[in-house]
Amino acid sequence: MTKPLRLGIAGLGTVGTGVVKIVRQKADLLAARAGRPVAISAVSARTRDKDRGVSLSDYTWEDDPVALATRDDVDVFVELMGGSDGPAKAATEAAITAGKDVVTANKAMLAHHGQALATAAETAGRVLRFEAAVAGGIPVVKALTEGLAGNDVTRVMGVMNGTCNYILTRMQATGQGYNALFEEADKLGYLEADPNLDVGGIDAGHKLALLSSIAFGTQVNFNDVELEGIQSITLEDIKHAADMGYRIKLLGVAQLTGRGLEQRMSPCLVPESSPLGQLEGGTNMVVLEGDMVEQIVLRGPGAGEGPTASAVMSDVMDIARGIRVSTFGQPASGLQQATAARASTPAPFYLRMDLEDKPGALAKVATVLGDAGISIDRMRQYRHDDTTAPVLIVTHKTTRTALDSALDAMGKLDVMASSPVALRIETV
Amino acid sequence: MTKPLRLGIAGLGTVGTGVVKIVRQKADLLAARAGRPVAISAVSARTRDKDRGVSLSDYTWEDDPVALATRDDVDVFVELMGGSDGPAKAATEAAITAGKDVVTANKAMLAHHGQALATAAETAGRVLRFEAAVAGGIPVVKALTEGLAGNDVTRVMGVMNGTCNYILTRMQATGQGYNALFEEADKLGYLEADPNLDVGGIDAGHKLALLSSIAFGTQVNFNDVELEGIQSITLEDIKHAADMGYRIKLLGVAQLTGRGLEQRMSPCLVPESSPLGQLEGGTNMVVLEGDMVEQIVLRGPGAGEGPTASAVMSDVMDIARGIRVSTFGQPASGLQQATAARASTPAPFYLRMDLEDKPGALAKVATVLGDAGISIDRMRQYRHDDTTAPVLIVTHKTTRTALDSALDAMGKLDVMASSPVALRIETV
Repeated sequence: MTKPLRLGIAGLGTVGTGVVKIVRQKADLLAARAGRPVAISAVSARTRDKDRGVSLSDYTWEDDPVALATRDDVDVFVELMGGSDGPAKAATEAAITAGKDVVTANKAMLAHHGQALATAAETAGRVLRFEAAVAGGIPVVKALTEGLAGNDVTRVMGVMNGTCNYILTRMQATGQGYNALFEEADKLGYLEADPNLDVGGIDAGHKLALLSSIAFGTQVNFNDVELEGIQSITLEDIKHAADMGYRIKLLGVAQLTGRGLEQRMSPCLVPESSPLGQLEGGTNMVVLEGDMVEQIVLRGPGAGEGPTASAVMSDVMDIARGIRVSTFGQPASGLQQATAARASTPAPFYLRMDLEDKPGALAKVATVLGDAGISIDRMRQYRHDDTTAPVLIVTHKTTRTALDSALDAMGKLDVMASSPVALRIETV
Repeated sequence: MTKPLRLGIAGLGTVGTGVVKIVRQKADLLAARAGRPVAISAVSARTRDKDRGVSLSDYTWEDDPVALATRDDVDVFVELMGGSDGPAKAATEAAITAGKDVVTANKAMLAHHGQALATAAETAGRVLRFEAAVAGGIPVVKALTEGLAGNDVTRVMGVMNGTCNYILTRMQATGQGYNALFEEADKLGYLEADPNLDVGGIDAGHKLALLSSIAFGTQVNFNDVELEGIQSITLEDIKHAADMGYRIKLLGVAQLTGRGLEQRMSPCLVPESSPLGQLEGGTNMVVLEGDMVEQIVLRGPGAGEGPTASAVMSDVMDIARGIRVSTFGQPASGLQQATAARASTPAPFYLRMDLEDKPGALAKVATVLGDAGISIDRMRQYRHDDTTAPVLIVTHKTTRTALDSALDAMGKLDVMASSPVALRIETV
């Protein structure tokens, strides 16, 4: 098999440029490993005239990604444009129809259309792979799909948005508040065009939904991911958590329980001495648990030109080597529609609230918790200088449902100066 | 492709038994993922009559592993007997000659005969895979071979012998000495029949040599791994290291430098706050560094029935899915014979010695170091009650060659009460 594998690359941002560089600079290495050359036939991007630090003159330029995806001299369509719909989806569908394999880094597209696209690819006898869509350079899709193929996967967890982890760890390190660090991240170019994708937990939620599908053999179901962003985390939360030996992380957890598939992406307290607690800056970490393998922890850069291009090339090299695995690890037609089990696994919770400085305020809150069947592990009222008093409560294990009913009841009390913040404590 | 993939399993210890359990208990899951059933045709072990907690009555029994490996109803020979030569090698060779794919957990066999066996397999058009041979349940062979296929790998590091890490972390935790913990590990069944394979660093050295080959495209060269065991590590070393913010780990490092391929497996000091420093008990950790992906860290159980069987099944499922990758990531014929660069990368070193209580003793040692061009970062002489004085020295960066010449010269001094212990400080 010495015929070159010919790529058509759509999207020449940092990742696309990184892929072009690897193919150009490592031709011999790639050919030795794959048993055949890997080449680029054509490229496409929004702007043609832009110095990308790498020569594109050897490749045909296509303005239209659909035209690129369907070219006769393209074997693999490499989709690096992004966006859940629009040109990325149109070109991916066109590529599959034209009998091309597809490699994509597009978590949004797959989180929304993964089942349909995987079905289309399999019907056409093509593969659709997405290592670069989850956790940057960490080969987690491969580890889960292939490395753990002999396991019933029991739980998947991860810190998979580097920007959120950057903001949270910088809050801890610098003592600056959320807004200041959000601006810093923006200036550094760490935020998506729509920052809510990052800080709202949506981007990380997309990734979790993709891993869930592989782990549990279920159809991708992003709509049932319980999503909570980091926007309401204050410096006080970071400090209180640290006082108790915890760190706050935007943590994704997916597990299949008797009640159904639980998927949540939310800021959680994790022990500071745990691998997740020690994760700093833009680094990602994914924890995979299976009945045979026990627990595997994977750590690496969650973004950036080199790491993400490395993940794209992992898929490209698989195809060059003749490795053809179903998108979600088994035929899309066999993936089950899981019942969503929202908030079913109990946990202790951290609650922070500001109470009006009135007699009996704390008693009212404690009564509401007791009425919801939630017992209190620790409570602390902080000194205050004005008319409200910050109060911190750590509950014993309870369900999110019980907690939500307590939070509802609290909202009706006349002593709440603001909405309480409730964070799950995950003992990983 | 609905024809079952038929296994012949030789060796029914904990790992072999674990594989049988997975194939029996997860038949539907494996078939869904592989697109075809995975079945067992025949098994073989030294003792037939033994309760292994799983029924073998559905499978043909073979006393002779060679007979098993060459059966017509076997597609994949699963070698779980162990031993670098003897029946394991004979049966593996017979399987390849008979046109079978081979999956093995046998690091000793591959460290010694990997190049010949890989060549034989490739000549016969078969695959020989060994995920379970390195770092137990961690899918590190797959991550390195496939996940990092687009990288020039720059360095591979790892703590890959759980027994040594168990002994070292228990010394730290309990304050007991090496001999007591060695006995404890022995009672718990953690030691190989020849314990020197564990505590002498040989087993971990085998694993490092296999990863090196994949990482650098070189022929497996176990003989040039610089090997040092943990037998001379004392409780004092553990304590001194902790005082300075380090932990002692049996650490493997492989890197390709301008001078050639450096492979060492030796007890090193690593920062206690680093992922490697925090690794407790029998857990393994492998660090993979590539020019594109930067650094990936993989952590998981290094041994045990479930984790190791999980790794064996990763290879079996690959074959069932039609994934066929060269043993060391590229054709064995293309692997280079690397020049061994012994001890070429400089590092600071920790030195512990007992000096005779004579005037000028410390000055003599300091002079010897100075003559070898080694400068001293820190030196400490401890209080002593008898005729010898414990001395601790941390050097600035130097080469192992310079250090060895200094150690030689020290041995000729009339003030040394015992041979010095020298440990590399690895800032990972």
